[in-house]
Amino acid sequence: MNSEYPEFTVRPIGFVRSARDEPIDDGWDGIETRIELDAKELEPDAVFGLSEFLHIEVVFLFDRADPAKACRSARRSRGREDWPLTGILAQRAKDRPNRLSVTMCRLLKAEKNILYVQGLDAIDGTPVLDIKPVMRGFLPRGEIREPKWAQELMAGYWE
Amino acid sequence: MNSEYPEFTVRPIGFVRSARDEPIDDGWDGIETRIELDAKELEPDAVFGLSEFLHIEVVFLFDRADPAKACRSARRSRGREDWPLTGILAQRAKDRPNRLSVTMCRLLKAEKNILYVQGLDAIDGTPVLDIKPVMRGFLPRGEIREPKWAQELMAGYWE
Repeated sequence: MNSEYPEFTVRPIGFVRSARDEPIDDGWDGIETRIELDAKELEPDAVFGLSEFLHIEVVFLFDRADPAKACRSARRSRGREDWPLTGILAQRAKDRPNRLSVTMCRLLKAEKNILYVQGLDAIDGTPVLDIKPVMRGFLPRGEIREPKWAQELMAGYWE
Repeated sequence: MNSEYPEFTVRPIGFVRSARDEPIDDGWDGIETRIELDAKELEPDAVFGLSEFLHIEVVFLFDRADPAKACRSARRSRGREDWPLTGILAQRAKDRPNRLSVTMCRLLKAEKNILYVQGLDAIDGTPVLDIKPVMRGFLPRGEIREPKWAQELMAGYWE
């Protein structure tokens, strides 16, 4: 690391275990998923009190995305010609710089080092970098506005 | 990197420029903040279409937190004796493994490589690792539940 081009290292705190092992666009809510936390990274009481929350936010790495193919400009989501050309930072696609993803999902059950979740759009083996509670105070304040393509994109995403 | 203890490298796509340069707990909404994107990491059209969204999600690094002091078990938020002992994954505190933060904030204006935002709880010089649009479809589905201490914690956070 030097000051002009700093780099930082992150290490998984756990891994996703899922019945889905290929990146499919839609239908994520029906997939059974658990997060196995790494006992070398975290003590069992690192999740103490987490089940007071109904939702958690999972930061994970799209580790199967090829960093060399990361889009650093604009593209069409899912290659759809009927959707507008959009900058990669205006999308949540996997082919992005740093390959980070953030998803809020439902926490079904928290055991010492296993979290059972619903609605996590991460495939089997995905490295998990962080888990946070979803607090009402951290949700966006005020009206949400989004373009039409974003609504169309999400139409079948969970169900 | 080896397969048993994988590590990943992330590189800032930009930096926070803010009037606030010390980590203060409360009052974040009044702070003027901009994100300067790094032209070496992103083309100008990487933000194309972003201003169709009112909110963005910013993934950043608590780079001033000492990694050696990261909590890997449980602690009390802000050291408050009247709040319960809580696992670090049930908190959003900075002293956590990987030092990652995720905040949804209001996008006021997007220029080619400068984003003007409101409600970003990151101090001056903070490395930004990713920016995503806030889509309604990615907000938590169903009721939000949280413990009382989380509401008390957030009481003065933004205002």
